[in-house]
Amino acid sequence: MAVVKLSPWANYSSSKSEIKSSSSSSSSKSSLSAYVINVSSSPRLSFYNPYPRRLHHQRLSSPASIRCSVTSSDQIQAPLPAKQKPECFGVFCLTYDLKAEEETKSWKKIINVAVSGAAGMISNHLLFKLASGEVFGPDQPISLKLLGSERSFAALEGVAMELEDSLYPLLRQVSIGIDPYEIFQDAEWALLIGAKPRGPGMERADLLDINGQIFAEQGKALNAVASPNVKVMVVGNPCNTNALICLKNAPNIPPKNFHALTRLDENRAKCQLALKAGVFYDKVSNVTIWGNHSTTQVPDFLNAKIHGIPVTEVIRDRKWLEDEFTNMVQTRGGVLIKKWGRSSAASTAVSIVDAIRSLVTPTPEGDWFSTGVYTNGNPYGIAEDIVFSMPCRSKGDGDYEFVKDVIFDDYLSKKIKKSEDELLAEKKCVAHLTGEGIAVCDLPEDTMLPGEM
Amino acid sequence: MAVVKLSPWANYSSSKSEIKSSSSSSSSKSSLSAYVINVSSSPRLSFYNPYPRRLHHQRLSSPASIRCSVTSSDQIQAPLPAKQKPECFGVFCLTYDLKAEEETKSWKKIINVAVSGAAGMISNHLLFKLASGEVFGPDQPISLKLLGSERSFAALEGVAMELEDSLYPLLRQVSIGIDPYEIFQDAEWALLIGAKPRGPGMERADLLDINGQIFAEQGKALNAVASPNVKVMVVGNPCNTNALICLKNAPNIPPKNFHALTRLDENRAKCQLALKAGVFYDKVSNVTIWGNHSTTQVPDFLNAKIHGIPVTEVIRDRKWLEDEFTNMVQTRGGVLIKKWGRSSAASTAVSIVDAIRSLVTPTPEGDWFSTGVYTNGNPYGIAEDIVFSMPCRSKGDGDYEFVKDVIFDDYLSKKIKKSEDELLAEKKCVAHLTGEGIAVCDLPEDTMLPGEM
Repeated sequence: MAVVKLSPWANYSSSKSEIKSSSSSSSSKSSLSAYVINVSSSPRLSFYNPYPRRLHHQRLSSPASIRCSVTSSDQIQAPLPAKQKPECFGVFCLTYDLKAEEETKSWKKIINVAVSGAAGMISNHLLFKLASGEVFGPDQPISLKLLGSERSFAALEGVAMELEDSLYPLLRQVSIGIDPYEIFQDAEWALLIGAKPRGPGMERADLLDINGQIFAEQGKALNAVASPNVKVMVVGNPCNTNALICLKNAPNIPPKNFHALTRLDENRAKCQLALKAGVFYDKVSNVTIWGNHSTTQVPDFLNAKIHGIPVTEVIRDRKWLEDEFTNMVQTRGGVLIKKWGRSSAASTAVSIVDAIRSLVTPTPEGDWFSTGVYTNGNPYGIAEDIVFSMPCRSKGDGDYEFVKDVIFDDYLSKKIKKSEDELLAEKKCVAHLTGEGIAVCDLPEDTMLPGEM
Repeated sequence: MAVVKLSPWANYSSSKSEIKSSSSSSSSKSSLSAYVINVSSSPRLSFYNPYPRRLHHQRLSSPASIRCSVTSSDQIQAPLPAKQKPECFGVFCLTYDLKAEEETKSWKKIINVAVSGAAGMISNHLLFKLASGEVFGPDQPISLKLLGSERSFAALEGVAMELEDSLYPLLRQVSIGIDPYEIFQDAEWALLIGAKPRGPGMERADLLDINGQIFAEQGKALNAVASPNVKVMVVGNPCNTNALICLKNAPNIPPKNFHALTRLDENRAKCQLALKAGVFYDKVSNVTIWGNHSTTQVPDFLNAKIHGIPVTEVIRDRKWLEDEFTNMVQTRGGVLIKKWGRSSAASTAVSIVDAIRSLVTPTPEGDWFSTGVYTNGNPYGIAEDIVFSMPCRSKGDGDYEFVKDVIFDDYLSKKIKKSEDELLAEKKCVAHLTGEGIAVCDLPEDTMLPGEM
């Protein structure tokens, strides 16, 4: 049953108002660390909530941004400059001349890392890994720009307070807010984790639509204020199509800078192959996840290797490879939810770290990694103009290239085709968000995402 | 109103029974990764639950232990050896000759790190830091021995699955179980995080009693099966008195090997001093938390330094130092709970990493760190035979010494005395668990723990 949606490209403007409430990062009595919540306008942020299918505009009360917590109450706040500076938090409002100090003078220039969904569980693991140097290395200071929502704002303050209490030397700036046009300012990395989970009775088309709007808006914001060569890692599901919508709304940023996270699937596939072959997982290499981060994803055992030997020569049980192995990787997220009662935030954060490190460190000789990227120019015959997980290599400069020497058989090609069809159908279903006119939703099947089984 | 409790030193024996239920780490169909739950006896584990004050023995149904998930169903399981080997999990059941491989031959010998409360939120951050090498360094492989409870056992499996999916090279063994006599086997580090939170209407004396029993039992288990020089870090609250009870039940382990975590308080104190002085927190040093991890704790600004200069010469507002600063550190946990809706698991895990690293890396010249340790032989005149947070330095060999050159004034001495009195009163209240006969509970006041405000 095809569903048609109009393209909501009109913008809205809203006025500026000031709410003064002081809740300090430490205690409300101390004048030093009271901070002022200033609600500033954002003509661009409006939220369409057509679920369940009625198109009604519900404008968010304008987003709030917290001023630096060292503003003393007797200082009359100068009017904000037109181009709003993201609001710093607590001890991270101070500025430091890193070149003037013995321990830090050899450090690289500070990089801006923006994170959406920053008050969620995945971020709660990831932010501390970013701050510890585990991702960009021990000489790379970072500025964390944390995007939350009105509902999660207090929790966002809690995260910033915990980052303060962790005393990481490399973490030099932290700003928090709910306006992407503020938070993405000069971002060099944007880790887009925030997304709406599937609600009861919500179909996949609705999920695509609701989340698509979030990523359309964030694409516009990145396009307007982020570094022109910002690298964007989309984690929020459905991540492939969200990444496509994001890049389509950011024409100034190279499409190949956008990634959809499939590294957790790759890590899971490596672990299952290692377990079956009775080897430690560091012996498994060349594992590709093809396609969509959904149950049509294709863990590729044909090109994978164990000790450098094709997997099919180590694990001869073809039936196990085709059935159980593929199924285990696809359903692992669901099994974990049953065990844990919540989704796998810790290992997802680990896989985001792996995915970034794969782009900032040279890929080991002969190996590759999986990442969902824009298909234009791909050497595998996969349809262009979608975001599809494929095997890539990097020189460690943030860029990547497609891997040429991979083989296909009927089984693999058929599976890839099925995931390709799904992504093409998803693309049609969000045409109203990618600027391609009328959306027509005719999704082949409701492929439950691994984490939602 | 003093309350008297008898000493429950009697032991119980229970018989062995076998429950066969297979739930796999991945999917139940695959023969390879079905695992068998074998319920083994543990004459030593019994649980007194005198709350609310009625002494009744409720023996846990004997704990379960999960066999290695690579046991194929056609292999008849050999009867377990008398001394039970902790049960490995999934891909971590395989054994690896690290000396035979190029990348790992230069690594140190694997160390056993046991963690209780391993399915909780703090552990969910900490275990991935331990596995990544952030704690013991990039050439130290580790074996994680994870202690859970019957109630949290499925979540424990979820943690082990996420550790599998994280592919950390240094993480070579993982075993899970609910019997401390099995899990603490050969442990060289024991991170005791699991504790009972305060229930509605529960007084501090009840909290001391219920948790005291857990730590008495874990002390006995460490004494029986852990490495003779095991380092024990108690995190579960009330951590000072829990650490005292633990060491009193482990006569074979040097008392000075037991620590109560006060590092989070130290980190928080440093951040607040930095914020007030307008410096980055890495400029603050020599911060001691004296006493009990409760609201009687004493953040010491007298001996602390900023840029090597006494804090009192940088922050001249003595009133702020005595009132707001001390109060902010003590209540920070409570403020965070209000922001987050849950306690600060991430920054607590960071402080555990800091506390361990302080014992395995030489303390920088002129600086020290806070840790709750056994007071016998302390140079500050603090009562002996309790666990009290004090300033220490380490050569990086896992051991430490008290710092000599600290100064006291009336304000600091009076505050320390108050915390000392509280710990002496707590000690009397748990005499039935430390082998000192009849407990008399006469606690000066109900000092709410920072995390429970």
